[in-house]
Amino acid sequence: MEDNVLVIHGGGPTPVINASLYGVIEQAVESGGVGKVYGALGGTKGVLEEDFFDLLQIPERERKLLLQTPASAIGSSRFALEDGDYARMPGVFRKYGIKYVLLNGGNGTMDTCGKIDKACGGGMKVVGIPKTIDNDIAVTDHTPGYGSAARYLAGTVHEVGEDVRSLPIHVCIVEAMGRNAGWLTAASVLARRKKGDAPHLIYLPERPFNEEEFLEDVKAIYDRQGQAVVVASEGLREADGNPVVEPIFRTERAVYYGDVSSYLASLVVRRLGIKARGEKPGICGRASIPWQSEADLQEAVLAGREALRAAMEGCSGMMIGFRRKESSGGEYNVETFRVPIEEVMMYEKTLPDEYINDRGNDVTEAFARWCRPLLGGEIPEFICLDKYKKEIRR
Amino acid sequence: MEDNVLVIHGGGPTPVINASLYGVIEQAVESGGVGKVYGALGGTKGVLEEDFFDLLQIPERERKLLLQTPASAIGSSRFALEDGDYARMPGVFRKYGIKYVLLNGGNGTMDTCGKIDKACGGGMKVVGIPKTIDNDIAVTDHTPGYGSAARYLAGTVHEVGEDVRSLPIHVCIVEAMGRNAGWLTAASVLARRKKGDAPHLIYLPERPFNEEEFLEDVKAIYDRQGQAVVVASEGLREADGNPVVEPIFRTERAVYYGDVSSYLASLVVRRLGIKARGEKPGICGRASIPWQSEADLQEAVLAGREALRAAMEGCSGMMIGFRRKESSGGEYNVETFRVPIEEVMMYEKTLPDEYINDRGNDVTEAFARWCRPLLGGEIPEFICLDKYKKEIRR
Repeated sequence: MEDNVLVIHGGGPTPVINASLYGVIEQAVESGGVGKVYGALGGTKGVLEEDFFDLLQIPERERKLLLQTPASAIGSSRFALEDGDYARMPGVFRKYGIKYVLLNGGNGTMDTCGKIDKACGGGMKVVGIPKTIDNDIAVTDHTPGYGSAARYLAGTVHEVGEDVRSLPIHVCIVEAMGRNAGWLTAASVLARRKKGDAPHLIYLPERPFNEEEFLEDVKAIYDRQGQAVVVASEGLREADGNPVVEPIFRTERAVYYGDVSSYLASLVVRRLGIKARGEKPGICGRASIPWQSEADLQEAVLAGREALRAAMEGCSGMMIGFRRKESSGGEYNVETFRVPIEEVMMYEKTLPDEYINDRGNDVTEAFARWCRPLLGGEIPEFICLDKYKKEIRR
Repeated sequence: MEDNVLVIHGGGPTPVINASLYGVIEQAVESGGVGKVYGALGGTKGVLEEDFFDLLQIPERERKLLLQTPASAIGSSRFALEDGDYARMPGVFRKYGIKYVLLNGGNGTMDTCGKIDKACGGGMKVVGIPKTIDNDIAVTDHTPGYGSAARYLAGTVHEVGEDVRSLPIHVCIVEAMGRNAGWLTAASVLARRKKGDAPHLIYLPERPFNEEEFLEDVKAIYDRQGQAVVVASEGLREADGNPVVEPIFRTERAVYYGDVSSYLASLVVRRLGIKARGEKPGICGRASIPWQSEADLQEAVLAGREALRAAMEGCSGMMIGFRRKESSGGEYNVETFRVPIEEVMMYEKTLPDEYINDRGNDVTEAFARWCRPLLGGEIPEFICLDKYKKEIRR
């Protein structure tokens, strides 16, 4: 009997999680040593319920659709596992002839990955595929999913900036995902092509948020340019650690938080008397296929391929990471490497100080340099009449 | 002296308003009888301040950038004009040798167009170019800008539906622009490719919104599928005509409204105890270039060309409209025609009854048939494992 593969998705989706799945399937087919490539339907819950789907049933000509399908084609879960659940898994794997177990997800999923590896005691090869739009996994330079979400945000803020400038709308607050790590919020800086471009202010969860400073900052930009575009993380907290927006109410089963964008816009109207609006694209951003980064897409496929390759080479308890290769021309070039899973389990990587400006309302040029290649090419150019006006006046 | 053209943009932008500007420029160059093609910088305010820019200064090779630039390259305004302002305009036009005045905008701008035409008393030829993402201009079958915004919304709800299904997130409310007319909200129906697909409920401003019915509807869908994606117009009103979301507060200079998406999500959490979130892409949607509809883009260019052609043929006080041509194969085919401006001035076209279902929580197949060709091709296909599962079980 040939050895089978099982892929498990965990946590929130990205625009390229299915691209990693595609990478696993392609690698399995090419390697020749694999029987079935199971997907656990609905994440770890699907393992415990033995709800598997053999992905090789997808006709070869249709497999490429995985590259342009957002969310998770095999589902995902935020299902909390108990010790007994881990203990049951090796039995399930044996029953289905599964030798290679690949977990695709973020910090929480890598924790699960480490625990499953331990439970299997070497009987199965368990490898992690990194994935998150938040880019908060340790050790790896960056994580598949981030580049596409970053491209979405930069491209969208670029477009919104153009809209706000042309009307003008006065003040617009765009809310970015990432509750504790500001990597995605920070990526909005790549919307800037020239002086005065949006975003004019960037507020990250790594710095305490001060309402008075925020109002001063907005007023200064508004007085200078007649408008301001602000990008704010959904996770902004005040110096005391409390969220800027308190939960509006709690029920037995859920909490409802207000939106940071809406709250900050209302603050601008109330305190400064300036017309403002908030936009919260939310999951529209993490599911956007037209804004996929080509570099991100390719790396996501590669991460899937390398994870199966590592497992088939006998690796276990490892995650695939990315690091930049030195190049003489300075161009972007990455290679994968294998990271011991205990170095990434549950660890949350936030934005380092050197990527944040002193005032805590913008990012540095060093961040922009680091982030730019992950977007997979410049965002589209817009026409700007100022350019021709200067030429005429000269 | 050659006759000059002036283009004025009014109201909120669309993803293709600059494409109409491109059409005017191309038509001016090809016709040979035109001197300068002025853009009024900042809308009608730019006319009164004589702030003009000759668009022929843009090098020919860079003009095409107008086709991929959102918002308004020459600015726009919501500036309220007084009678004296209209009276001053003919003098300004004469001073700059402007014989052809083209106003690009929605209902309000067409009202301005009619009044400028009257003020000019036949001395200048004044023609309207229709533009709005709301599609609420009378007489014309549809309006440039609508198809692209509709494609954005349908494509985005398609993606969000995939995200919600894969996690699952339970209930997600996506807010759509269009305060009085539901054309754009309705277009989200084109996200549906098969039974059970998002959006599961669509609430339009044309029908009074009833919170109890909304909660019943959401609960029924949730009980059946374990999740629900709802698209709601920003302009929802209750039976008494009051907005569903009251203004949170007013200042002397501005009013701040809460978001419908956020309010409805909080209602689902509070009343049904089901986890819910709201997304409000807002102006991210009306400025999205990757979701431009190719049909819309071409029609926007055509509207610009036809407006100048009409003016040069001596037409004045008219707007360019679109109507569908009969075709034996049933394929989509449009032609332009000239609409007397008084038939569209300030008139707001809302969604007719035959496009709304009886319960007021969805649109009809007749609407989908009408809307589909405006999106300029199907939205991208995603992989769906259910399809292969059925084949295997058969």
